[in-house]
Amino acid sequence: MNWKHKHLLDIESLTAAEITTVHDTARAFRAVGDRAIKKVPALRGKTVINLFVEPSTRTRISFELAAQRLTADVINFSAEASSLKKGETLKDTARNLEALNADIIIIRHSATGAPHFLSRFLNSSVINAGDGAHEHPTQALLDTFTIRERKGRIAGLNVTILGDILYSRVARSNIWALLKLGAHVTLCGPPTLVPKVFEQMGCRVVYDVNAAIEGADIINLLRIQHERQRKAMFPSLGEYASLFGLNRQRLARAKPDVLIMHPGPINRGVEIDSDVADCSRSVILEQVTNGLAVRMAVLFLVNGGKGPQEVGV
Amino acid sequence: MNWKHKHLLDIESLTAAEITTVHDTARAFRAVGDRAIKKVPALRGKTVINLFVEPSTRTRISFELAAQRLTADVINFSAEASSLKKGETLKDTARNLEALNADIIIIRHSATGAPHFLSRFLNSSVINAGDGAHEHPTQALLDTFTIRERKGRIAGLNVTILGDILYSRVARSNIWALLKLGAHVTLCGPPTLVPKVFEQMGCRVVYDVNAAIEGADIINLLRIQHERQRKAMFPSLGEYASLFGLNRQRLARAKPDVLIMHPGPINRGVEIDSDVADCSRSVILEQVTNGLAVRMAVLFLVNGGKGPQEVGV
Amino acid sequence: MNWKHKHLLDIESLTAAEITTVHDTARAFRAVGDRAIKKVPALRGKTVINLFVEPSTRTRISFELAAQRLTADVINFSAEASSLKKGETLKDTARNLEALNADIIIIRHSATGAPHFLSRFLNSSVINAGDGAHEHPTQALLDTFTIRERKGRIAGLNVTILGDILYSRVARSNIWALLKLGAHVTLCGPPTLVPKVFEQMGCRVVYDVNAAIEGADIINLLRIQHERQRKAMFPSLGEYASLFGLNRQRLARAKPDVLIMHPGPINRGVEIDSDVADCSRSVILEQVTNGLAVRMAVLFLVNGGKGPQEVGV
Repeated sequence: MNWKHKHLLDIESLTAAEITTVHDTARAFRAVGDRAIKKVPALRGKTVINLFVEPSTRTRISFELAAQRLTADVINFSAEASSLKKGETLKDTARNLEALNADIIIIRHSATGAPHFLSRFLNSSVINAGDGAHEHPTQALLDTFTIRERKGRIAGLNVTILGDILYSRVARSNIWALLKLGAHVTLCGPPTLVPKVFEQMGCRVVYDVNAAIEGADIINLLRIQHERQRKAMFPSLGEYASLFGLNRQRLARAKPDVLIMHPGPINRGVEIDSDVADCSRSVILEQVTNGLAVRMAVLFLVNGGKGPQEVGV
Repeated sequence: MNWKHKHLLDIESLTAAEITTVHDTARAFRAVGDRAIKKVPALRGKTVINLFVEPSTRTRISFELAAQRLTADVINFSAEASSLKKGETLKDTARNLEALNADIIIIRHSATGAPHFLSRFLNSSVINAGDGAHEHPTQALLDTFTIRERKGRIAGLNVTILGDILYSRVARSNIWALLKLGAHVTLCGPPTLVPKVFEQMGCRVVYDVNAAIEGADIINLLRIQHERQRKAMFPSLGEYASLFGLNRQRLARAKPDVLIMHPGPINRGVEIDSDVADCSRSVILEQVTNGLAVRMAVLFLVNGGKGPQEVGV
Repeated sequence: MNWKHKHLLDIESLTAAEITTVHDTARAFRAVGDRAIKKVPALRGKTVINLFVEPSTRTRISFELAAQRLTADVINFSAEASSLKKGETLKDTARNLEALNADIIIIRHSATGAPHFLSRFLNSSVINAGDGAHEHPTQALLDTFTIRERKGRIAGLNVTILGDILYSRVARSNIWALLKLGAHVTLCGPPTLVPKVFEQMGCRVVYDVNAAIEGADIINLLRIQHERQRKAMFPSLGEYASLFGLNRQRLARAKPDVLIMHPGPINRGVEIDSDVADCSRSVILEQVTNGLAVRMAVLFLVNGGKGPQEVGV
């Protein structure tokens, strides 16, 4: 299936075949990271701009390194001390960046739909690096890529997503990707953070953590964002940990070859116990490595690449 | 006319022929921005340092990209969290950067004359990226380049600069460049911001916006810097907009093929109405694209390039 | 003597021969800085991450340029706005950076031993860019390199270190390097900042500045960090200057060919008079230039280089 999109805005509008094309392309690029010279000339002379209106060191660095390994030129534009602070509209900021002959603009923004908005008037390719509580498509692509590389398939697997679903763009993108690829998705967390409405998407919603973990092939933990979480959503971090934190005892209910995933940064002792985070079933750091490969793939594809057959590394 | 300056400190000390050499060199480099591979090896292995003591994302990124496209290595040095904060003198900071074998130091500083000061003791080339309310030479070079590319000439054109002239280094550099190139320059704005003394430079000073626009070939709008403007200079943003803001009605007095320019970021509804900013006569985004080409030209020339005949792209 | 360490954590654990290997390699790289094209392909396709948990523009830029000149890809990771602020442990942050296929992680941290800690579980090479008041090995390597290039040797020289020894990682690393290389080290400063215990390392501790300078081949001044110094350590900057500041009169007691060194940024009028800082015996800026060469050497060596014979520039 040849890729044919100019932008990567969300998972919702992708087909299963397109997601698979990203995975296959990422596999080709992952090999680059293991080589002595970790570079390919695929995007030589192209300009990539990281437009991070909402700060994120982790995702920004992953995209920056991905662009560097494709030999692109990268510029980091952060909202602080920028023209956005002087009252410039996002549209004007984006059009100014495009006027610098930007080939690809990667945007993270606190407003849902910001990347879609840009894509309607820019000639540059737009990549969504997280928009509000809406979507974070490269995270879902790297999560499903990690599952596929480890399990050989996604269809038919039991995937449990545990934590703050309501405010999580990671959860939303993962749900879309997993359902399109044929997984059974179970959501679990405090009722305030996991509304029943997610059943309409095709997920199972469960409030008993033991039931949620029972028979799971994959447990994907979401970060409890205690630094910005509305306090009213659950009583305390300690209570969250005791009711929903993943520990050895709860993990025993999952399948023996379960994979434990987390988009990071992890809160040890809150959503995950330290010995679980560091155990052999944890693929959390593998997700980071795969994230780089997936972002190389996405940059390559939106820039006109068709698929893995063109990587030629 | 071969370029022979080691620094670019201001427009005042350039000849018309030298300004034209920058334009011609920029034209050669602008073609690079349209190519699939937007790079030339002209500054390979050279070190360019952005010394931005006064913050500016927009100009900094333009210089950074210009250096990258010339294949230079670029380092961004911002005043925050730097040795300048620890009480180091500007002279010592600059000499330390030079000791890192810097070939070109680009400086933005709130003090008039800071670039000239550095040029007196540095062996590195110095480029002024804006010094206080004094000069911003690359902005004037890109503005006049844009006019020349669109109009084919500058001599004899009626250029109206509208807004805060008094505190504007953009205005000052533009006035020098336009007068040297033979344009008729009209300045307009609130009397508090446009003192009569500018007539001694050879400009016409007008306080009636309609008279200022009448017959204009070019209207160059300056940003009302409401975030740092002294409040006493005009009553309110609304009053400024109603008295001096460029709208359709006022624009009708200009020539039909008038060009509307603005150094950005624009304040929609203050110095310019949205429909005017986005109309076919606006070349605001073209200025951004040309700015990159002009900065490539300036980096190339101060580093020893003679002119467009050496670009060879 | 072939280099065989994967990390550079401190000077204490290096032998004199290993320090000399760094010097010899730095000499080979220093020539690169004088060339028209200041780059060599030694680290092409390698990823270097600057993990600066404690801010430092000066050292960070020196490492960044060193990596660029070796053609490595460099990522700057600063603690502000990063996952460390969200409660992530240093270990998790470092393992996440490593998962991005980082070849070398350069760390500056306020905690003594942070680089050693990382080196125990990372596969990436670790370079200490300053850990608390413990060590700053590349500073000592560049200081001793500068002495050796100027004096032809280090053994037998009288080196006086003057200032805040107690809290200075620069002092500690320099003392180790100088003693290993056979210099006579004298420490001087206010008794509150120069405890007698340093005599156990093999240094002479003197509280009379004239006695300390008498017959010195080298005077290495340490910065009085007035912006973070505990106020109780000495009465005032003025009193420090009058009692310990290096001026012409005091300098006359040193040998005629004395070298004046300072890691920068200097406080003119505090630890050093302006005319002394700028006199012909000062090698302060040479230290900056040599620092770049030393950091290129260190990056080259920890990445598997054996010594100067492999530089081949």
